[in-house]
Amino acid sequence: MKFTINRSAFISQLNNVLRAISSKTTIPILTGLKMVVANDSITLTGSNSDITIESVMSASNEDYELKIAEPGSIVLPARFFSEIVKKLPDKHVTIEITSGFQADITSGSAKFQINGQDAENFPHLPEVEANNTVVLANDMLKEVIRQTVIAVSKQESRPILAGIHVTLHDGLLTAVATDSHRLAQRKVQLDGVGDVNYDVIIPGKSLDELSGMISDVDDDVKMQVTDNQVLFIFGNTHFYSRLLEGNYPETSQLIPDTSDTTVEVDAGTFLSSIDRASLLSHESRNDVVKLTIKPGEKLVRISGDSPDIGMVEEDVATSAVEGNDLEISFNPNYMKDALRSFGQSTVKISFTSPLRPFTLVPTEDTENFVHLITPVRTF
Amino acid sequence: MKFTINRSAFISQLNNVLRAISSKTTIPILTGLKMVVANDSITLTGSNSDITIESVMSASNEDYELKIAEPGSIVLPARFFSEIVKKLPDKHVTIEITSGFQADITSGSAKFQINGQDAENFPHLPEVEANNTVVLANDMLKEVIRQTVIAVSKQESRPILAGIHVTLHDGLLTAVATDSHRLAQRKVQLDGVGDVNYDVIIPGKSLDELSGMISDVDDDVKMQVTDNQVLFIFGNTHFYSRLLEGNYPETSQLIPDTSDTTVEVDAGTFLSSIDRASLLSHESRNDVVKLTIKPGEKLVRISGDSPDIGMVEEDVATSAVEGNDLEISFNPNYMKDALRSFGQSTVKISFTSPLRPFTLVPTEDTENFVHLITPVRTF
Repeated sequence: MKFTINRSAFISQLNNVLRAISSKTTIPILTGLKMVVANDSITLTGSNSDITIESVMSASNEDYELKIAEPGSIVLPARFFSEIVKKLPDKHVTIEITSGFQADITSGSAKFQINGQDAENFPHLPEVEANNTVVLANDMLKEVIRQTVIAVSKQESRPILAGIHVTLHDGLLTAVATDSHRLAQRKVQLDGVGDVNYDVIIPGKSLDELSGMISDVDDDVKMQVTDNQVLFIFGNTHFYSRLLEGNYPETSQLIPDTSDTTVEVDAGTFLSSIDRASLLSHESRNDVVKLTIKPGEKLVRISGDSPDIGMVEEDVATSAVEGNDLEISFNPNYMKDALRSFGQSTVKISFTSPLRPFTLVPTEDTENFVHLITPVRTF
Repeated sequence: MKFTINRSAFISQLNNVLRAISSKTTIPILTGLKMVVANDSITLTGSNSDITIESVMSASNEDYELKIAEPGSIVLPARFFSEIVKKLPDKHVTIEITSGFQADITSGSAKFQINGQDAENFPHLPEVEANNTVVLANDMLKEVIRQTVIAVSKQESRPILAGIHVTLHDGLLTAVATDSHRLAQRKVQLDGVGDVNYDVIIPGKSLDELSGMISDVDDDVKMQVTDNQVLFIFGNTHFYSRLLEGNYPETSQLIPDTSDTTVEVDAGTFLSSIDRASLLSHESRNDVVKLTIKPGEKLVRISGDSPDIGMVEEDVATSAVEGNDLEISFNPNYMKDALRSFGQSTVKISFTSPLRPFTLVPTEDTENFVHLITPVRTF
């Protein structure tokens, strides 16, 4: 195996694959980067057994300035190898297997020789069938992930809640996540997906990682599903994630369809106010803020009180306040996460009673995105 | 006590004082920020008992838009108070003591009330006499600190080595630091200091913090010394540090004045090469790199070898190589720290033998800055 490549183009592909590689793993070879050199391309693979990322550099892409002298394969210690490549002095780097599993790395006057492993020992990739491919617009996919991943559970007590429940029926893509204190649901009508149907639970962490990767590219994303894997393809990258097994809780009837008090606020302004009030609540034992709503006086007041520390009070500007008077308390972190996911829009918040979950929807599209938060009992 | 002030101008002074305040302290009141409001100024004080920072905001400085309604004083929880001020909505903030030690903080529609403490309980500042003042140029002081602080010991076994030994005799300022593996010494001839003499040991941490603070201002720095404190004055800030007590080891005779092999290299280029070689040495048990010097062949080679991991080898460009052949091994971290302190200059490295300390000096000024490194025995 021997090839020479443009170093900075190589580094950008290395960085992609490194996202899947952890230095803490129970399978030692997964700290390695697999490199397979064919006659006209190089494939890099990294995996942490949850996700696997594969990046193909074709000799026909002139950016790589790729010259392959001899095919072959090897697994090299990923972190160490990438640090070396990043610090080499020259524009190009040459990587060559000299004897056994030893790789020579040369660039300018610098020469490294590092010990690798047999690529045959690297776990094999799952086979994913291509007959249920759906094409997702890059920006739309990022938005769906951003709006739902915040509600994914970080607790290990119910592993299924660490996933996002993604379904596709009759062209309607629905993503739902809940940690049992809050829930986020986003729907998107897809065109031209034919009769492809999905019902899968994808780990939130995997989608978070995917979202970061597709932020760097403009490509649309192809999605394919098998029994226990999902594959996302964009540019020259294949991103595999395992699926969570089990039944996701039924969530559709959790979302109330009536309300007794509604408030419309600017998401950014309301976020700033909640953020301020949370400074005080974070210092106190029970991390809650109170919302006092009096539609008759057009009053919406955020407040917090902790005898040891002090108190906070702020009246919030609103574009509409309707319905019954209400006092309700909630965890400000849930509210902050929710409001951030709305970006720069007006949000309608609908309440029923002090102990029943309330919903947030963007006023410009009340059907396709809803965030639900369970209040905290303080009396 | 009551005043109104421009919030962003207030925040920049708060940030200054916060540098001295630690949330981990054995003296609870030192987690607080002391605020003393006089008729025409506000003084903020923070301290961690090693360093104390005092910042005076005068009503005559229009940037503060300071309106003092009533003098007074209080100690407020520093981190919590500054987070609140930073997140308030309006251009101005009003702070008022309403009853006892409770402070009202209002800005726009937001109102906080937080519990403070009696300012009388805050430790009193040391008195520093003004009869031995020396004025130090801002850039010069930063350079002296930068070049010596790297050699300060991080180990607690010999507390005196955690300081920089600063002396002033006949107008010659000398700063020396050593952790017993390396030493850095910088001299500066000062003009117009009269017959002021110093011989003090200032904690490296204090000078590091000072260096960060004076980076933000253009002012020259006044220095004053008492028995157990040093005071630096710049702009509207007073920066106090305690001095280390004890005798600093005699260092002048540690620096060799002869050499058998010398090499001249560009600091930046040599740093890159050492940095690369250290990637390999960091992975191996004994973190050393080897330098092979053969003046007859104009050869200077950096190399490292670790059977488990691999090897590295690089020939270094030099502007001069003279004297005897030599092989010498050293900790690459010491060399990297030293080379960084030289910035963009040519460095002359002078060796005697494989087991004797070697020196680095900038070729443009070989008298006033010297860095000494002890090699590592590998045979």
